[in-house]
Amino acid sequence: MARCREIAACTEVPGEITRLFLTPPMHEVHALLREWMETAGMTVRVDAIGNLRGLWPGLTPRSPCLLIASHLDTVTNAGAFDGILGVVLGVAIVEEFNGQFQPFAIEVIGFSEEEGVRFSKPFLGSLALVGKLDANTLARTDRRGISVAEAIQAYGLDPAQLSTAALSNETFAYLEFHIEQGPVLESEDTSLGVVEALVGQTRMELNFAGQANHAGTTPMHLRHDAMAAAAEWIVAVEDHASSHSGLVATVGKVAAAPGAGNVIAGHVTASLDVRHADDSAREASVIAILNLAETAAARRGVHVTSGKQLEQPAVLLDPHLTAVLGKAAARAGFPARRMTSGAGHDAMILAPIVPSAMLFLRSPGGLSHHPDETVLPQDVEAALATAMEFLAQLRDDRTNPKDGHA
Amino acid sequence: MARCREIAACTEVPGEITRLFLTPPMHEVHALLREWMETAGMTVRVDAIGNLRGLWPGLTPRSPCLLIASHLDTVTNAGAFDGILGVVLGVAIVEEFNGQFQPFAIEVIGFSEEEGVRFSKPFLGSLALVGKLDANTLARTDRRGISVAEAIQAYGLDPAQLSTAALSNETFAYLEFHIEQGPVLESEDTSLGVVEALVGQTRMELNFAGQANHAGTTPMHLRHDAMAAAAEWIVAVEDHASSHSGLVATVGKVAAAPGAGNVIAGHVTASLDVRHADDSAREASVIAILNLAETAAARRGVHVTSGKQLEQPAVLLDPHLTAVLGKAAARAGFPARRMTSGAGHDAMILAPIVPSAMLFLRSPGGLSHHPDETVLPQDVEAALATAMEFLAQLRDDRTNPKDGHA
Repeated sequence: MARCREIAACTEVPGEITRLFLTPPMHEVHALLREWMETAGMTVRVDAIGNLRGLWPGLTPRSPCLLIASHLDTVTNAGAFDGILGVVLGVAIVEEFNGQFQPFAIEVIGFSEEEGVRFSKPFLGSLALVGKLDANTLARTDRRGISVAEAIQAYGLDPAQLSTAALSNETFAYLEFHIEQGPVLESEDTSLGVVEALVGQTRMELNFAGQANHAGTTPMHLRHDAMAAAAEWIVAVEDHASSHSGLVATVGKVAAAPGAGNVIAGHVTASLDVRHADDSAREASVIAILNLAETAAARRGVHVTSGKQLEQPAVLLDPHLTAVLGKAAARAGFPARRMTSGAGHDAMILAPIVPSAMLFLRSPGGLSHHPDETVLPQDVEAALATAMEFLAQLRDDRTNPKDGHA
Repeated sequence: MARCREIAACTEVPGEITRLFLTPPMHEVHALLREWMETAGMTVRVDAIGNLRGLWPGLTPRSPCLLIASHLDTVTNAGAFDGILGVVLGVAIVEEFNGQFQPFAIEVIGFSEEEGVRFSKPFLGSLALVGKLDANTLARTDRRGISVAEAIQAYGLDPAQLSTAALSNETFAYLEFHIEQGPVLESEDTSLGVVEALVGQTRMELNFAGQANHAGTTPMHLRHDAMAAAAEWIVAVEDHASSHSGLVATVGKVAAAPGAGNVIAGHVTASLDVRHADDSAREASVIAILNLAETAAARRGVHVTSGKQLEQPAVLLDPHLTAVLGKAAARAGFPARRMTSGAGHDAMILAPIVPSAMLFLRSPGGLSHHPDETVLPQDVEAALATAMEFLAQLRDDRTNPKDGHA
């Protein structure tokens, strides 16, 4: 936690924590982590997308390799633990080895980009690892017109060398620690959560077109009130999600036009965000929710249209590794809740390529992306103890392979 | 209608109708109306607030005086009939006399200001008539920093002479023609409406304070969604108003913060506009509607506060004059609907001082404050015929006074 706070001081904006992809303070972060990693005996490099990579070798040069990673960038005015904690925990695990080599190597990676703030596209660091950082992405520009490729060069790296950022062939598993960024663990008085899946997500915009009219001279029965239609729908969205297990649905952005207190709204635009770990459940709910909009609108002679902005399938983490992680937590004395992640994480990018597992740490107040974001010391200890049990199990699996999950 | 369109060409903004209080195009309006009035034999003056006043004398210099008036200013990008039509009809009535003097004088007034656009305060013209234009109002400034007093001077008038704008002591009745600016008459296939009262109005702002949170990581049962609370309330407001006769209630302005599609709204501000012709009915509804907000908010752990922005009592028009106007319409062959006005008009300012009546003309499409605002020729004929019957009745009343409504 002290290390996270030390890294938090590396910021573009004094007085807050703001550290976007490949901005100058990232050099300071790399220097700090490099020092801790090298002191622990790791070999450190920065790859061509700006990921900091520390390798603790295995017993042989061709030992299989476990990846422990999370991200080093932050949102604007962020907290001190989102991302960073997962990297610092990776270093702490290697330090726990006390110089002892393992039957597998461990590579700890601090991804250069996950939040998507600077180039309005997330996961740049992990996408490079799996070879999915394409030319279009390299050509994206930030607010100042600087492209991703130019940002890489300005940081002192070579975008032509991106292929060297690729995952090593020896990688056999991916493990990510992350704060929950939600209230579930706290509400259940639990330190840790084992993530089974990262939810799929549909984002839409709905337009309710009624008729703007004078609030005084238009009797209720002659109105086509777009705001009343949207409001009925917003309540129906909440009802629907509350009665469907594992579903969350949110209308967070609403704009009424003309937007005057004495004019009936003629037009309302509203956002819709629907998430579920099961894609077909999510898709069925999106259809049901759009039907609810039709019903609320038709009742008032309001016309509703919708457009899809994002459709992202759910990502399942590796069932075996996830089971091992769950048992490890229990053995460490911290039985973990099985849960889905409602937010995106680098594990989403790695999971289709390499067996992946993810451990959540309780977020006090459910708070994240906020200066008050924190984590409890005992939960960090629980995560580290769980990690050591998890590694012990991986060692056993390597030493005494079973057919059960070949 | 041709005269209204001719006046519509007097505008600050070519291509649209925009004519605020005492702006240069008002000189052209005054010139046109002065010509029509003087041709009809009227004596014309502009008073110190910029009201154009044409007097058709009665049989004697001390004859009682009937006021026929409406306003000459417009909103931004207005239609051609709002206000103007009532003034032009006053001139047309005098023209119908064909030079015959009546047992009462008629003063036709084109009020200089009713819409409240330039100085964010309406009724400046009629307020001067009843001596309620105070020093604070004269000191108000427009967007360019020009005060009402300075605007009067710039127009070539003298704010020190405001007392000469006062209503003459002989005035015994006020009559206003105005387009309905609403859909009621059209929906009932009726030309004319006799206004019994102008509604009272409460305007408030409500604040729903919940908790902003991640739309993906916060399960439905752990949310404090300010938007969902506001939405439930908006639907309840519509329900309440729909089930209370004569009530209109509108939520036309809604803003959710932080206002991102993937963030649960932590804060929502919403407007409330409640109108009824009966003040105690309106007050009871405001209390009920605030209770509905409490209920919707409490259910979600959301806190709601509210502030009153405007409270304006209803204004009853003169029951006798209103009855006379209703009978006149029926006699003219256009049975009029008895109705309340949901909007404010100069008649609100005059009614407490002098017996007042008001006649609405159907608004095609319910449209007003819009370039497409119009009126049907047969409805203008109906209004003029009603006016002539109304004046005939007033003549009879003057000639054969009864005790019934002394």
